[in-house]
Amino acid sequence: MDKQALDFPRIGVLPAGPLDSICDVGDVTVGHCTLADGPQQTGVTVVRPHGGDPFLDKVPAAATVLNGFGKSTGLIQVQELGVLETPIALTNTFGVGTVANAQIRHAVAANPGIGRGMATVNPLVFECNDGYLNDIQALAVQEAHYADALARAGKTLALGAVGAGRGMSCFSFKGGIGSASRVASIQPGLCYTVGALVLSNFGRLPNLTVAGRPFGRRLADQVGGGLPGGENAVIVPEKGSIILLLATDAPLDSRQLRRLSLRAGAGLARTGSVFGHGSGDIALAFSTAYTVPQLPEQPMPAVAMLHETRIDPLFEAAAEACEQAIISALWHAEGVTGRDGHHRAAIRDAAPQWRQWLSDTAF
Amino acid sequence: MDKQALDFPRIGVLPAGPLDSICDVGDVTVGHCTLADGPQQTGVTVVRPHGGDPFLDKVPAAATVLNGFGKSTGLIQVQELGVLETPIALTNTFGVGTVANAQIRHAVAANPGIGRGMATVNPLVFECNDGYLNDIQALAVQEAHYADALARAGKTLALGAVGAGRGMSCFSFKGGIGSASRVASIQPGLCYTVGALVLSNFGRLPNLTVAGRPFGRRLADQVGGGLPGGENAVIVPEKGSIILLLATDAPLDSRQLRRLSLRAGAGLARTGSVFGHGSGDIALAFSTAYTVPQLPEQPMPAVAMLHETRIDPLFEAAAEACEQAIISALWHAEGVTGRDGHHRAAIRDAAPQWRQWLSDTAF
Amino acid sequence: MDKQALDFPRIGVLPAGPLDSICDVGDVTVGHCTLADGPQQTGVTVVRPHGGDPFLDKVPAAATVLNGFGKSTGLIQVQELGVLETPIALTNTFGVGTVANAQIRHAVAANPGIGRGMATVNPLVFECNDGYLNDIQALAVQEAHYADALARAGKTLALGAVGAGRGMSCFSFKGGIGSASRVASIQPGLCYTVGALVLSNFGRLPNLTVAGRPFGRRLADQVGGGLPGGENAVIVPEKGSIILLLATDAPLDSRQLRRLSLRAGAGLARTGSVFGHGSGDIALAFSTAYTVPQLPEQPMPAVAMLHETRIDPLFEAAAEACEQAIISALWHAEGVTGRDGHHRAAIRDAAPQWRQWLSDTAF
Amino acid sequence: MDKQALDFPRIGVLPAGPLDSICDVGDVTVGHCTLADGPQQTGVTVVRPHGGDPFLDKVPAAATVLNGFGKSTGLIQVQELGVLETPIALTNTFGVGTVANAQIRHAVAANPGIGRGMATVNPLVFECNDGYLNDIQALAVQEAHYADALARAGKTLALGAVGAGRGMSCFSFKGGIGSASRVASIQPGLCYTVGALVLSNFGRLPNLTVAGRPFGRRLADQVGGGLPGGENAVIVPEKGSIILLLATDAPLDSRQLRRLSLRAGAGLARTGSVFGHGSGDIALAFSTAYTVPQLPEQPMPAVAMLHETRIDPLFEAAAEACEQAIISALWHAEGVTGRDGHHRAAIRDAAPQWRQWLSDTAF
Repeated sequence: MDKQALDFPRIGVLPAGPLDSICDVGDVTVGHCTLADGPQQTGVTVVRPHGGDPFLDKVPAAATVLNGFGKSTGLIQVQELGVLETPIALTNTFGVGTVANAQIRHAVAANPGIGRGMATVNPLVFECNDGYLNDIQALAVQEAHYADALARAGKTLALGAVGAGRGMSCFSFKGGIGSASRVASIQPGLCYTVGALVLSNFGRLPNLTVAGRPFGRRLADQVGGGLPGGENAVIVPEKGSIILLLATDAPLDSRQLRRLSLRAGAGLARTGSVFGHGSGDIALAFSTAYTVPQLPEQPMPAVAMLHETRIDPLFEAAAEACEQAIISALWHAEGVTGRDGHHRAAIRDAAPQWRQWLSDTAF
Repeated sequence: MDKQALDFPRIGVLPAGPLDSICDVGDVTVGHCTLADGPQQTGVTVVRPHGGDPFLDKVPAAATVLNGFGKSTGLIQVQELGVLETPIALTNTFGVGTVANAQIRHAVAANPGIGRGMATVNPLVFECNDGYLNDIQALAVQEAHYADALARAGKTLALGAVGAGRGMSCFSFKGGIGSASRVASIQPGLCYTVGALVLSNFGRLPNLTVAGRPFGRRLADQVGGGLPGGENAVIVPEKGSIILLLATDAPLDSRQLRRLSLRAGAGLARTGSVFGHGSGDIALAFSTAYTVPQLPEQPMPAVAMLHETRIDPLFEAAAEACEQAIISALWHAEGVTGRDGHHRAAIRDAAPQWRQWLSDTAF
Repeated sequence: MDKQALDFPRIGVLPAGPLDSICDVGDVTVGHCTLADGPQQTGVTVVRPHGGDPFLDKVPAAATVLNGFGKSTGLIQVQELGVLETPIALTNTFGVGTVANAQIRHAVAANPGIGRGMATVNPLVFECNDGYLNDIQALAVQEAHYADALARAGKTLALGAVGAGRGMSCFSFKGGIGSASRVASIQPGLCYTVGALVLSNFGRLPNLTVAGRPFGRRLADQVGGGLPGGENAVIVPEKGSIILLLATDAPLDSRQLRRLSLRAGAGLARTGSVFGHGSGDIALAFSTAYTVPQLPEQPMPAVAMLHETRIDPLFEAAAEACEQAIISALWHAEGVTGRDGHHRAAIRDAAPQWRQWLSDTAF
Repeated sequence: MDKQALDFPRIGVLPAGPLDSICDVGDVTVGHCTLADGPQQTGVTVVRPHGGDPFLDKVPAAATVLNGFGKSTGLIQVQELGVLETPIALTNTFGVGTVANAQIRHAVAANPGIGRGMATVNPLVFECNDGYLNDIQALAVQEAHYADALARAGKTLALGAVGAGRGMSCFSFKGGIGSASRVASIQPGLCYTVGALVLSNFGRLPNLTVAGRPFGRRLADQVGGGLPGGENAVIVPEKGSIILLLATDAPLDSRQLRRLSLRAGAGLARTGSVFGHGSGDIALAFSTAYTVPQLPEQPMPAVAMLHETRIDPLFEAAAEACEQAIISALWHAEGVTGRDGHHRAAIRDAAPQWRQWLSDTAF
């Protein structure tokens, strides 16, 4: 999809990577399984941090819970041990248990000693509530959908109303999967990339802010009670959520990754969020610079971490990439009609007049 | 079961409640579903904080993660919102997803608006790894087992190798479910009760400490390599876990309950634990003194919380009740043989000589 | 000072309180002691949460450490007990110890039992590093300066280069003390006020964002290496900090206040911050709706807290008030010359051309 | 002092290092400055993590706040950055500000760029309330006392009623400075040492537990209202605190050190503490295995951290060393008479009959 053809708003000043997606980082790949059948508008998205088995070669990671109105699973162990050991799965709120089961079965198949002498495995599943478009009570996500998303993981990344993003809403428009990347220059001759992938399902229309411009407020003023999506989004309380994943090839330990993950919140805030009460806003960051072995017989990595005083460019990149990834989700998502005739319009259909606004206000 | 007949060691100095169990607190009830069939030695235990619907009348709660090598789910929202909104479920590590699904379906059945206009519900499932006795890879726990345990909830509480405790090990003996209570005198004429229920699956034999006495060390010295359980527990690294639930009728807010939950760790430490690396040691405390309504139209409770300077007796009660509950799990558990012929002996069978040790060392 | 005369940028959509300052909330008062003598450009600011003795009538409070590169003192006890028990003091980084001593002496004078049978008192002092303008190594702040600021506390609030803000910088301009308030409508007939006071000493010029508009980037492009302040702010790493205080008359407990304090970060991010590595970014929120007695003999308050689902308007108000308070600090601060001839210009002197930019871009 | 001559109770099973003190670890040294003059019974203790300048060569560190009723300063930055950058200072509650000032002046003298281009320095001062014996309101600790303690730092470590421990009480006896070490065998041929130093000022007599034996309860039963110290300790609420410092030569990062620091709580609990409400119980752990340079031009260390599954022996060592260090403080402290004739007796004077109890109950 040609971003320019959509008048795709460009966030910030840092250069993007070649793909402008989380797949710019190391061997990160992403796969989707999309369920789009009448009232079932949901799915699973899987982020693989590297091409190997993350149970055997664990990935340094850390998380920030910006607002813990969320049902994700696996974070307690990530916070304690500073690693993730499965691919990262995204799905709807009521799909967490089933996808966790799928992760367990997949890990056991690859490592039959799990739970039989080896330690158990820590499923890592994040969620948003897609219940406006999706019949979430049906618990439609099956274990096979996780396997399917995992099998499809690749460097080419579909965006918008796909995978776990299929049924998600964002600022009363259609939301879903977004991604972006930024290249941070640490010192002459040394750059690292920060990639973001979001599952974007938050926001009340009047708060929508695009590159600093209060489009939501303008649109809400204009349309009054007849907002896109067939409801008056102004007065509906926030029931959304957003998951923000950050990947970087910079050598960071889990403490530094926790710091990085918090900066996702800066990007999120700039789109109009105040981490609303009902929104499960969780950020997780991982590094592809090294792995930690499962087996103590294998040597531990001896990595010179980034000097703390050089981390600011990564913080800037994280904030920009997350803000851009949210815009990416909004601008790529097609309109979807789901359960009970509920509909979310694509912002790109509503946005033609915005091109004029954008050109009016650019500087 | 007559505790005295077992020479049941008595912990601490505070008086127990009439049941010496978590069911001494308010309307708390507990139910088990036990799976005991060849290599399947596992189950589900459910703690109901009150007799109503906890989704509609939420229960103030908070947790402490002593060691986050654990796969429990639901804690993120408890930490953010300070309430629990389902019964508390305990099961094996790989049963978490399925039991969470069961909790969702149960809550939706009672409240059809969940996920369709109402917020979603936060499943709260804790786990330990019973893989030594139980074929955990079989994922034998089904949603119906949760429903069964819930239906059986009552004030009479079976202990030991029952429910989620069926396959658990503790200090190389048979562990499982334990419970106890202590009555804390706050000031003349004012008492509150603290009840504990543990899912006890931790500990290396040489560390076993009973009422301050290093029985494990003595036993390990005596038996050398031939310890109960058919393995040399001394050198097997810790792969256990313990879940410590605390209930109180004292009026505490979630901040105070977090403080209370940490004191579970004091009781745990006194049994010989150092919160080992591989042990998911998590404590959760809740109060039965008031509830918080789901619906904003209902009045919020106006509760005078306990003055902070009067909380020490509750801290003492929490530590004593948890230590006693662990002893309770050990002393009540019968021996179990599970997958691949693995066996855990009952400590009460091994303990006759300990009666002599106890009488030697009492003062 | 007439804000309109300065083309004072207005943030957000919520109405301000009558003073548009933290003093709109309850009995909150603020006092400054300003040191402005050659290389000494520093001071003390005191926020009194109510007119009484906060040691005897403690104030519910909580904090969020957005970035812990900071030397503030007192937060550990606030996080544990959920109250503050002294006025809140702001000063420079190396003044914390002396101001803490002053707080202790003041509390002991009022309550001679402190440390002699009563518990000790918890000084609460926040800081930023004003070392660019102020000779911070001189440790010029004395205990008397705290007493002076405390004695001057009132509802009329001087802003900008005053009190603890005297030597502070912000986006390479003069920063310092800023304040604002917002009125949150919870439901028909029920409003609460959120007031913010910031000690603003952060930001690299190219990141300066005013009401969503990237003025810093435009100015940096325009002036190149010759930025205000006599240095090239673009490449100087962040060494600032910001303290964000929030007061509200809404009945919130400490858990809810912690949630509120985090939303200060949303306002901060929108001005161009990513919570830079070297910036101690700390937010504290307190409620004036009730107090907690020191003495257990006094009755504990029985307060119906705000229902959690009604907290979003307060979150919006907190974010807006903080963003506005930062703008307030920038727009009110006069230029200051300090140690070694270092100078920070007032943004209002640099900003006349911005009025044109603002009118170009408003909608 | 000959420990055997005192019938010094030996905790646990792990071997101690040659000094059985924190000085067994790397280049750690300790110095005291003791004030013992009538009502002034207080002091300063300094722990130097290595022989160099910790501002230039920072020391990996982390902390656990077991109970945050404390006024220590510096922890926020330790938690964020994972390093300490000054010697660790211990003093009385009202000495924190002054000692922090002393640390600042000492760091500035060594590094004149601090606060003038370099970042500021983070003072790290821990405290307990010695107000029973010491006239804490006099704020007697001066900056020179810090310098004196620092200058005296060495490998030979005085224990008991010295330095910051001069005025401290513990279980109604005289407390103060204690230390111990344990050697942890990680695998054949690989050992690390964990050293503990405590400032011990907590505990109600009936809870005193020595090597698992409830001596406090027995003594309280025996003496009734006439307990050592001239007061009835049974009903006096806890107003103490304990600081637990852990040093290790194991290569641990700050996340792992945080895990280690929590295990101090296991040792503390075994002496009879439940982390009482009024007790500021804080543990900090640091590693001497590597340092982190202040200057980004210097290479970052490339250290292979300890594999997580090998950390349990360090956890055991931390718990044992802390429990032993508390016993060490009690057994080494001489009796002290301070302000208003208040007296704390040495436990070794009260303990002769305990020798008989110990021999009765040993196994």
